[in-house]
Amino acid sequence: MRTLVDLNADAGESFGRWRLGDDARLLPLVTSANIACGWHAGDPATMARSVELAREGQTSIGAHPGLPDLAGFGRRAMALSPSEAAQACLYQFGALQTIAAHGGQQLAHVKPHGALYGLTFKDEAVAEAVVEAFATAVPGVRVVLLAGPVSERLAQRGFPVVREAFADLDYNDEGHIIIEPDPAAKSPQVCADQAEAVLRGEVRSADGNPVQVDADTICLHGDRPNAVEIAEAIRERFASAGVRLVPMAEAADARG
Amino acid sequence: MRTLVDLNADAGESFGRWRLGDDARLLPLVTSANIACGWHAGDPATMARSVELAREGQTSIGAHPGLPDLAGFGRRAMALSPSEAAQACLYQFGALQTIAAHGGQQLAHVKPHGALYGLTFKDEAVAEAVVEAFATAVPGVRVVLLAGPVSERLAQRGFPVVREAFADLDYNDEGHIIIEPDPAAKSPQVCADQAEAVLRGEVRSADGNPVQVDADTICLHGDRPNAVEIAEAIRERFASAGVRLVPMAEAADARG
Amino acid sequence: MRTLVDLNADAGESFGRWRLGDDARLLPLVTSANIACGWHAGDPATMARSVELAREGQTSIGAHPGLPDLAGFGRRAMALSPSEAAQACLYQFGALQTIAAHGGQQLAHVKPHGALYGLTFKDEAVAEAVVEAFATAVPGVRVVLLAGPVSERLAQRGFPVVREAFADLDYNDEGHIIIEPDPAAKSPQVCADQAEAVLRGEVRSADGNPVQVDADTICLHGDRPNAVEIAEAIRERFASAGVRLVPMAEAADARG
Amino acid sequence: MRTLVDLNADAGESFGRWRLGDDARLLPLVTSANIACGWHAGDPATMARSVELAREGQTSIGAHPGLPDLAGFGRRAMALSPSEAAQACLYQFGALQTIAAHGGQQLAHVKPHGALYGLTFKDEAVAEAVVEAFATAVPGVRVVLLAGPVSERLAQRGFPVVREAFADLDYNDEGHIIIEPDPAAKSPQVCADQAEAVLRGEVRSADGNPVQVDADTICLHGDRPNAVEIAEAIRERFASAGVRLVPMAEAADARG
Repeated sequence: MRTLVDLNADAGESFGRWRLGDDARLLPLVTSANIACGWHAGDPATMARSVELAREGQTSIGAHPGLPDLAGFGRRAMALSPSEAAQACLYQFGALQTIAAHGGQQLAHVKPHGALYGLTFKDEAVAEAVVEAFATAVPGVRVVLLAGPVSERLAQRGFPVVREAFADLDYNDEGHIIIEPDPAAKSPQVCADQAEAVLRGEVRSADGNPVQVDADTICLHGDRPNAVEIAEAIRERFASAGVRLVPMAEAADARG
Repeated sequence: MRTLVDLNADAGESFGRWRLGDDARLLPLVTSANIACGWHAGDPATMARSVELAREGQTSIGAHPGLPDLAGFGRRAMALSPSEAAQACLYQFGALQTIAAHGGQQLAHVKPHGALYGLTFKDEAVAEAVVEAFATAVPGVRVVLLAGPVSERLAQRGFPVVREAFADLDYNDEGHIIIEPDPAAKSPQVCADQAEAVLRGEVRSADGNPVQVDADTICLHGDRPNAVEIAEAIRERFASAGVRLVPMAEAADARG
Repeated sequence: MRTLVDLNADAGESFGRWRLGDDARLLPLVTSANIACGWHAGDPATMARSVELAREGQTSIGAHPGLPDLAGFGRRAMALSPSEAAQACLYQFGALQTIAAHGGQQLAHVKPHGALYGLTFKDEAVAEAVVEAFATAVPGVRVVLLAGPVSERLAQRGFPVVREAFADLDYNDEGHIIIEPDPAAKSPQVCADQAEAVLRGEVRSADGNPVQVDADTICLHGDRPNAVEIAEAIRERFASAGVRLVPMAEAADARG
Repeated sequence: MRTLVDLNADAGESFGRWRLGDDARLLPLVTSANIACGWHAGDPATMARSVELAREGQTSIGAHPGLPDLAGFGRRAMALSPSEAAQACLYQFGALQTIAAHGGQQLAHVKPHGALYGLTFKDEAVAEAVVEAFATAVPGVRVVLLAGPVSERLAQRGFPVVREAFADLDYNDEGHIIIEPDPAAKSPQVCADQAEAVLRGEVRSADGNPVQVDADTICLHGDRPNAVEIAEAIRERFASAGVRLVPMAEAADARG
């Protein structure tokens, strides 16, 4: 069983007049926060506020770029080319980076959101374009991808990839997560079970079949109504199992 | 008469399916290009193309952030607070910076566009918020503001301000430029006359009155149909008057 | 004292993944609902849902067009020309009308939102362009404008104007409402007092001076956290004062 | 060979500061114009201008709703549900309808654009949701769909469908058109050949195989650089073949 892992959550998913998530309570419970960058959620003021909340919570931050689809919260699939996907990620990463710099913070990672994340595990050319772009433009930044064949191959080629598994989403038999447009509350214990299963290297798919996973970071969704309770349940489970939470770079490097 | 000056033009003002301006011909004629960043014009692919054209033309590049108003091309006034204006500039600057880094280039300056630029000379609190934000977040980057009382005061306080005058826009008696929503062709010789007048330190307002200017850089608009001819006329005039074109930082530093 | 009046509230101000307001509880308490149309809030699915909630609540519906500013919720002033403002209203009205028709409902009125509403009382040319546009394009539809000199003049010229006053916003000494970007909870009794004052024809400005009003409809804001309590307090006050709530057309016609 | 057919073209595909297509020359050459409605192209002022140009050209008009993707011009596939697709069409149709009414005109049809059109021939549930929505909300309006099995089935069920074929796009062997993101100039004679082939009931796919078509209207793309020349070539060909251009409703009814 893995004993070092990062716990990440999406943050900054409010937009303008609208509020979503409880970042002030959630961010201190995770080691990495993925901050929305304006395309699927988040506006500059919200981004600046999220950077500040993460600083207060001593949470490492990264960019959470999405598709240009506010009305669909970036969760509707959209056919971007590999180059368009990479540029979308660069654009949004840079936007957050400068706002973070104004708040005295630095970004450690980038993790595509929703259906843009879906593109990176369904279309290897997209994943490759994204990791190549970041390796060139902002070396040192880690790219979070779904733990699975695509991210393994890219990691073996030397790209700074972090492999991710999910505590609060179902998997299909191919090892792909099933993205929910509008996540409902979910049992914290069920999520903690799945988080622990990830560390043991195998989860159950929605159809009950075994799916192998080898992940450096575990994600939970900030827009799930009981995200804070889920985060607390996972932390307790990890504490009792002797698992230590560390930043994602350390978790990825520990694996070798 | 000033003998060192920068010549800047807006670039990258296409958007998606739509083309605007002739960057390939215009950029080699100017010393600095202000590249649109996606809010009033420009999309990531256009931004990447503009960075590449500027590299080929050996033109220094900067960000040209605008208001969030694609339909109005950022030329309709909009009441942003100083903090909102500064964050809008940081966001768009960062977005371009990362795309430029992917193309192996760096940004030297930032210049607000259209009605956002208008805010910086009509509302000193906005100008101050913008220069303070850049001094904190990306020290070394120059902020281009209209040559006039606001930019003078900020320069005297030590902010890295570059003072700008216009070759192809009319001035009112307050020394404010009159922004055109949809610029028409204009006589290249009239523009060259105004450029030369800027270097002598005084232009005529639309009402015929003298307006004092002391500028480090002179702007012409890339979306004017004959922008290339205007640039050529200004270059010829400067050549025959012994004026040398230099990057804006050098022009600003020469003045002291 | 007026004894017939319409009570209206903004509705449908959710957007995509984000929820705002409690339309299911609020709509049955008012006689007219102003449904957001996608530019400052509201997306097609939200619009369809609001139409259905209004049908269930037996509430008359109208369009609530806003500025093209989702991030600012349409509450940041923006310099639209009279023609642009009128076209913005026509566009959004039509969009909602067809969605309402699909739900078996019809629109009775249009009321500009936020800073677009602000334009109609600060710039008479804008108000005139809007009422002229609706008189031509969709005769029979009422246009809601701030009770005051502009709406009086347009009503006297025969345009189908409904004059509006506010229960939950402060007035300045010019009789203009002071728009809040992000309304906080407010005392229901204070709002009921102001609603009653409106019916008596005079409210107090924020500076304590008398402002004359003569209004056919009274507005309260659906995005105020305690909007439902405010609506209930106003209804109780009206019931005990013998004031009857009627659709805005009837209220306007009663006045003559 | 068919002797009555409608010729349609997309129009109003400018946006804000950007111009696209030559509607003033193209519209008089076609019998029906599909006017963009703001989501993939077109803004209210452009829409009003297009309505006026169509009136001058005596061209029947309809709505051309697209996906919410300005940067991709509505030509990138996007996973809308049947209900989202239908509401997107209703929303945009209504918006144009009211603007057209202000210009004294009425809409005769609706035709989804780009990748939204693609959804209607790849996913029958989407096509069904769209035709059902229009039959309910605006009875009498014709819905233009790709000539093929889906549109045949819906027509046989009594929905007011118009079947469309393309003069300037290639077909694949399934009878699906191949959407081009950025159409280049194309030989007018080749397009006229394909238009004539449509009337004979069979075109060649890109792979050279026969594809059966039975179409009431033939489309050409207004954003192709030589759209006007293509329209003229088709008109000449039809004239010499004794084919008469009629509005799409008449063409569809003639077929029975």
